[in-house]
Amino acid sequence: MTKTKHLLDLDDADRPFIEALITRARQFKAGLPNENIRLRGKIVLGMFFEASTRTTTSFAVAASRLGATWIDFKTEGSSLVKGESLEDTMRTVRAIGADAIVVRHAEAGFPHALARYFEGAVFNAGDGAHAHPTQGLLDAMTLVEEFGDLAGRKLLICGDISHSRVARSSGRAAWLLGASVTLCGPPLLLPPSVPGWGFAHISADMDAVLPSADAVMLLRIQRERAAGGDMPPYADLATSYGLSLSRAATLKPHCIIMHPGPVNRDVEIDGSLVRSERSRIERQVENGVFIRMAALEKSLGSPTRERVA
Amino acid sequence: MTKTKHLLDLDDADRPFIEALITRARQFKAGLPNENIRLRGKIVLGMFFEASTRTTTSFAVAASRLGATWIDFKTEGSSLVKGESLEDTMRTVRAIGADAIVVRHAEAGFPHALARYFEGAVFNAGDGAHAHPTQGLLDAMTLVEEFGDLAGRKLLICGDISHSRVARSSGRAAWLLGASVTLCGPPLLLPPSVPGWGFAHISADMDAVLPSADAVMLLRIQRERAAGGDMPPYADLATSYGLSLSRAATLKPHCIIMHPGPVNRDVEIDGSLVRSERSRIERQVENGVFIRMAALEKSLGSPTRERVA
Amino acid sequence: MTKTKHLLDLDDADRPFIEALITRARQFKAGLPNENIRLRGKIVLGMFFEASTRTTTSFAVAASRLGATWIDFKTEGSSLVKGESLEDTMRTVRAIGADAIVVRHAEAGFPHALARYFEGAVFNAGDGAHAHPTQGLLDAMTLVEEFGDLAGRKLLICGDISHSRVARSSGRAAWLLGASVTLCGPPLLLPPSVPGWGFAHISADMDAVLPSADAVMLLRIQRERAAGGDMPPYADLATSYGLSLSRAATLKPHCIIMHPGPVNRDVEIDGSLVRSERSRIERQVENGVFIRMAALEKSLGSPTRERVA
Repeated sequence: MTKTKHLLDLDDADRPFIEALITRARQFKAGLPNENIRLRGKIVLGMFFEASTRTTTSFAVAASRLGATWIDFKTEGSSLVKGESLEDTMRTVRAIGADAIVVRHAEAGFPHALARYFEGAVFNAGDGAHAHPTQGLLDAMTLVEEFGDLAGRKLLICGDISHSRVARSSGRAAWLLGASVTLCGPPLLLPPSVPGWGFAHISADMDAVLPSADAVMLLRIQRERAAGGDMPPYADLATSYGLSLSRAATLKPHCIIMHPGPVNRDVEIDGSLVRSERSRIERQVENGVFIRMAALEKSLGSPTRERVA
Repeated sequence: MTKTKHLLDLDDADRPFIEALITRARQFKAGLPNENIRLRGKIVLGMFFEASTRTTTSFAVAASRLGATWIDFKTEGSSLVKGESLEDTMRTVRAIGADAIVVRHAEAGFPHALARYFEGAVFNAGDGAHAHPTQGLLDAMTLVEEFGDLAGRKLLICGDISHSRVARSSGRAAWLLGASVTLCGPPLLLPPSVPGWGFAHISADMDAVLPSADAVMLLRIQRERAAGGDMPPYADLATSYGLSLSRAATLKPHCIIMHPGPVNRDVEIDGSLVRSERSRIERQVENGVFIRMAALEKSLGSPTRERVA
Repeated sequence: MTKTKHLLDLDDADRPFIEALITRARQFKAGLPNENIRLRGKIVLGMFFEASTRTTTSFAVAASRLGATWIDFKTEGSSLVKGESLEDTMRTVRAIGADAIVVRHAEAGFPHALARYFEGAVFNAGDGAHAHPTQGLLDAMTLVEEFGDLAGRKLLICGDISHSRVARSSGRAAWLLGASVTLCGPPLLLPPSVPGWGFAHISADMDAVLPSADAVMLLRIQRERAAGGDMPPYADLATSYGLSLSRAATLKPHCIIMHPGPVNRDVEIDGSLVRSERSRIERQVENGVFIRMAALEKSLGSPTRERVA
């Protein structure tokens, strides 16, 4: 989806696409003059069917910094709920003048469905267990800031891999930039084939793979899920695939720690590591705004906006 | 209410008032330089006691495009709910600096009550079954775009007429511009006297009046209402007053189809007609933003804002 | 808390601090050129764990008037609720680029906890029964507008003193500017020691102290509370400590009436007094926006914003 104005996932992304966005994000981070007028007059609609203060706020800040107007589309009581078809809602939203939609939905593929009907740009802010492309890009940016060229660098992602849209997007982005990616979790929560998702190493033994990692990313353990029918593989996620202090002692000196947040302290990661020297957790959040600025600008930056004729 | 800064209904509107707003809206649609500073510094408060993503977003976009600040007034947990009098709330909102309020409420006349106490401008975004003036204006604009002079043109509005604030406002606006308006629905859901509402023809036979229409507007069937005590007249609304393909075949070649949205596909209108050549449904939505820009500018466009002394 | 960028309470405030803010607020009220670019690019996050349309809107308008971007941080479904630590949430919010947080919370001290972790500025918009510093400042501004020098002026605050963050903040601010402050309410709802809170006179007899007041501030009676276990002292709050017409007849000719709102008409104050000549209730609301502009500018007005490195 790299040749369209949409940013739905990273399935069709290539290295130049990712590198260009990271380069632009780093320019924004360094401070660009007049950034606040680059998207002046553009309307970005936040459509969050799942609450997410972190991602909503990050996108809203990114849009605002570029001079665009961020409007919260209230999903409760919306026309969709009143029985309007998805196509009709999308065409309506476009006719109202929305240039872009940022959407999060529990259902995988929902943003792709929007994109079929919406003539503006659709940004996927997380769809079920499928994709979270701006998270993948911000993680790639964080790795590039740290290591420059990622060739030969090893990224280890630990936890509930199979339900994680972050693992999917961040793993792919790092791999596209040349990193070696290992997905680590209990066998039932790992991709069934090797290489995983077509590009990743697979391991069920965190202690074995941890010492060679240049970056280790812990995934959030969804306690809700642990309480449900998925119990067996979840029960030992924290003990077998969490980053304890003793495990952290086996890390390479320069190995960095990442986490998409929000963190369950002392569950998937020892609380004392969250703001340690190794941690890049805040950096990830910070980079998220700049990556989203770059992505919004790439899709919306054309000088003129077409209207429904 | 045309000589005041408020836009509460179209009961006292005249032709020059409507024509001036449509002319201005068409200028906005064509693109005006510096539109984004015309209301800079103005504060517009959205006060939606009934959820309406479509109308809320349209007004928010209109305000933003003119450089005004749109602020969502949270109606839940508001002072009104805490027992504050309507007058006190309105005076407070004005003292805070709101220049305009856009209000939707289930109760007919609520915006008029606000206007008694609020020294800024009140825009009715729908009050019960009473009025929805910007909808009326955007529909009139859509008709004028299509036909130019409306003299001799026939607008047919079909469905639950008596509960429809859209029928009331759109019918009146079109009639003021010279169109002949026919309200069509089951006798129990029609105005009791002739001419209806003082200006409209009345018919219970859609098949009889459809072939002579230049524009046919279907009203949304409120399924909630159909489930209640109003059952008998509602039961056959779709079959007797919906636009089926066979009925559409009897339309004049140039007859256009309108609907205020959200559409119940295959209920009040055959799904395949929604995006047909005849449909102006998206156009109506698009025009809504420009009409609201014109209305906001007309009320708020004065260079200085008075403050509570 | 006057030497930090935060505005958490007025406990450590001194007279020059308050006077400077009032002076600046009055400049804003008189109209300053280019006020709308003073905080351009700044991000202010509204974090309201208790609904408050009045204070939220006032802060949002203040931020907008200075050119800052106001973003509503949705507290329901937030990361805090998902188990994230307060520290992690605050550091995340900062990394996203928030320059300031405006927070209201039912728990006394909550904003102070935020301030420990948030590197931007925290504005307390009310924490339990503890403090509401911008209310205190806007009340002080209203008194200064009325009387100029407050030396020798008597401010009487009546009602449920002990549960009132307004009494605490407004009383202190007026006292710091030289006014004599009397807290008046049933003994069980008065501070236990004399002078109250270290600076105020105490009285349980409103009729005795009313005739000498230059300004009388009625506090809102929380009906919720009256219905609970606190019944005895609440039962007669209105009759013993409300401003009836007969009591108002004993006021000095120039004595003004204040109330933080929302007003329960005919409970703590006779309805006919709310918009009487003596009333400054709307003025208080109006001044609130200007005081908040002054406070935001003081904390955020530095030309450059540091980012997480």
